[in-house]
Amino acid sequence: MSKTGTIYGVGLGPGDPDLMSVRSHRLITTAKHVAFFRKAGRKGQARAIVDGMLPETAIEFPMEYPVTTEIPLSDPRYNQALSSFYEEVTQHLIELAKCGEDVVVLCEGDPFFYGSFMHIYARVRDVVPTQVVPAITGMSGAWTATEAPITWGDDVLTVLMGTLPEETLSDYISRTDALVIMKIGTNFDKVISALKSGGRYEEAWIVQYATMAKQTVTKLSEMTDAVTPYFSIIVVHGQGRRP
Amino acid sequence: MSKTGTIYGVGLGPGDPDLMSVRSHRLITTAKHVAFFRKAGRKGQARAIVDGMLPETAIEFPMEYPVTTEIPLSDPRYNQALSSFYEEVTQHLIELAKCGEDVVVLCEGDPFFYGSFMHIYARVRDVVPTQVVPAITGMSGAWTATEAPITWGDDVLTVLMGTLPEETLSDYISRTDALVIMKIGTNFDKVISALKSGGRYEEAWIVQYATMAKQTVTKLSEMTDAVTPYFSIIVVHGQGRRP
Repeated sequence: MSKTGTIYGVGLGPGDPDLMSVRSHRLITTAKHVAFFRKAGRKGQARAIVDGMLPETAIEFPMEYPVTTEIPLSDPRYNQALSSFYEEVTQHLIELAKCGEDVVVLCEGDPFFYGSFMHIYARVRDVVPTQVVPAITGMSGAWTATEAPITWGDDVLTVLMGTLPEETLSDYISRTDALVIMKIGTNFDKVISALKSGGRYEEAWIVQYATMAKQTVTKLSEMTDAVTPYFSIIVVHGQGRRP
Repeated sequence: MSKTGTIYGVGLGPGDPDLMSVRSHRLITTAKHVAFFRKAGRKGQARAIVDGMLPETAIEFPMEYPVTTEIPLSDPRYNQALSSFYEEVTQHLIELAKCGEDVVVLCEGDPFFYGSFMHIYARVRDVVPTQVVPAITGMSGAWTATEAPITWGDDVLTVLMGTLPEETLSDYISRTDALVIMKIGTNFDKVISALKSGGRYEEAWIVQYATMAKQTVTKLSEMTDAVTPYFSIIVVHGQGRRP
């Protein structure tokens, strides 16, 4: 009987393939099975990052979200739909591993930092061998793009999701030194409002498509274009001790 | 006259050389000049990470901190000593660049995230061409080592330095979902006390030497050994939404 394969959660980093780790690069360029999330009908951002890197013989397994923003997060049907979806794709990955096949699951950013992979990970880790390869976070790509350090000395850094209620956002914003806000998209107006009431709007930058060819870096207060829903990160730099 | 060289702030990631980015790897293995911080009399952790990777012809420039923990942070002499030191090493790097030489400055972790490189960066960025290569943060290496995701759904993540006052630490600890504490070392007892009063002590993990050969991952409440001053990171996982 063949040896059980390993499921690798492979972090891709913020988007530029040159910024993935040497280990992720090696796993991807030698992969036999490659799984990745995408929205139905799209190529998928994770898959796009590895364009030209996969072996010709690689067998691809796109995992298409049954729902993204069509059902609100608060609706129980959202969790039900996603839960069934994760169960289903996980079963396929486990079957591959049980047949002795290693599977590379492509993860945008860092797999354990607000990623989708963790929903697979939680379902496979006690069943088949699993390994996670960390990566540069999207937020690190964003603050590097602003050409200024995010934190100095003993600055406090707070990372917030735009999906939180406005008062919650505003409260955290008013108490931190450095700040990152992700999952902005349809929450944009609420986030702006919270940054204003939290007193940090004037210092905020918005980075779109960090480290990618279409990267833009803009003072939030000077932004004129419409925001790109998914690949936008807001950054407020700390002002801590600097000799 | 020769072209001006570039000063590269090259992130090394959490410690395992296999986790540095493809770009950092390329810059390091082709470097002509390599600068790195270290404590006087030590080899230096950044330099140790690239052992065996530098070209034989690389010219090394160790930058030795004039002070680390001998003078308290609050003493004005601490800032004065470090400020003179940064000025001095920066002048050398600028001279090299003005002679047309590229210089790779090795940075543990991610250069713009609580690093020493930013003190050089602030002094060179308007003088000679400068580029920063982001990297996997030490904290990402730490939470990956715990084999559990740090943040789910819309968890709030707070990053704190152990150098902060205990009441400040405790206040932030009590308000966050996920938590990372760095710069623990001599602040260990204070940090433990703040975790207890902030109500998160029982959930906390401590990771020493994340991603390195001597990595240890321990429930903080079950720790018996003495803490390694510098390379320790405390992690408390978020418990957010998970379908």
